[in-house]
Amino acid sequence: MKKWKVYVLRLNHRPSRDKRVTTHLLLAARAFGADGAFYGGLRDGKVERSVENVSESWGGSFEAQYVQNWSRTISQWKEKGGEVIHLTMYGLSVQDTIDRIRASPKDKLVVVGGAKVPGEVYRLADWNTSVTSQPHSEVSALSIFLHELFEGKELSLSFEKAEVRVVPQAKGKKIVRTES
Amino acid sequence: MKKWKVYVLRLNHRPSRDKRVTTHLLLAARAFGADGAFYGGLRDGKVERSVENVSESWGGSFEAQYVQNWSRTISQWKEKGGEVIHLTMYGLSVQDTIDRIRASPKDKLVVVGGAKVPGEVYRLADWNTSVTSQPHSEVSALSIFLHELFEGKELSLSFEKAEVRVVPQAKGKKIVRTES
Repeated sequence: MKKWKVYVLRLNHRPSRDKRVTTHLLLAARAFGADGAFYGGLRDGKVERSVENVSESWGGSFEAQYVQNWSRTISQWKEKGGEVIHLTMYGLSVQDTIDRIRASPKDKLVVVGGAKVPGEVYRLADWNTSVTSQPHSEVSALSIFLHELFEGKELSLSFEKAEVRVVPQAKGKKIVRTES
Repeated sequence: MKKWKVYVLRLNHRPSRDKRVTTHLLLAARAFGADGAFYGGLRDGKVERSVENVSESWGGSFEAQYVQNWSRTISQWKEKGGEVIHLTMYGLSVQDTIDRIRASPKDKLVVVGGAKVPGEVYRLADWNTSVTSQPHSEVSALSIFLHELFEGKELSLSFEKAEVRVVPQAKGKKIVRTES
């Protein structure tokens, strides 16, 4: 499906305000095909456990790792030859950037802000790109970005070693469990 | 851009837990081209004000309206000839439903659950459809659904009577304000 790795870096997590949004963001990163994620701000065991529990039940190897110094995470990514894509409503339209980002052979670190993103992030990023220039949500911005990056193929991803799978239904719910 | 109206119905809002997620969901509905939204559960003035403030500054006429009885909202929508699309990870893949939903001339009510969706919703819906069968977020599910429904054209929407607009930049931020 892809020639490069994709990781997500979520900046400035605040457990009191952002718990559910950060969890949703990380689960969206997993569901839409990112290989893993980092998050900065304050460490939050609840968020980490939610993501672990989902990966355990629903399969795959997605993990979210806390980083104390996000600026170093970005620098190290670039030193290893990767590129950095910052999602911001102030950036160039994703419609105008996505073909070039997809064509580039570099591993991709997708940076998603929380509150107040420091100017440094705009400068360090190889791409500042927007999913509309309207205020909405980092969860929707990341999802649409990954959907465009993977050209919709991520919607049919399957996850290895899943204990639980859904069998799509027109009405109601059907779940299959694999005994481990 | 479209021949039908699209409204979003968010079920079971809990102000204590969901404030930011519901706000993000409603802002995503607005940004990705829905005409308006309803929400049920507990009424939340903060969520309503956040959405109003965004519409006031960033333009358009999107509103979020509280409904005490979501079941009646669904019935009334159907009585007026509209159809109901329930986004659920247990439904048929959006890849398999979206062309038929788009081709149907009916106005669309997109129902998005919060916690525990009653079985009644699955029965009342004309479509139960999924954006992947993985757990992620109602915000990402709605965004990808609208993006597919509008075939990406919603990314270039412009909003009338905006006081504030972003001028997309490769680095940094540029905002234009219209004095009113």
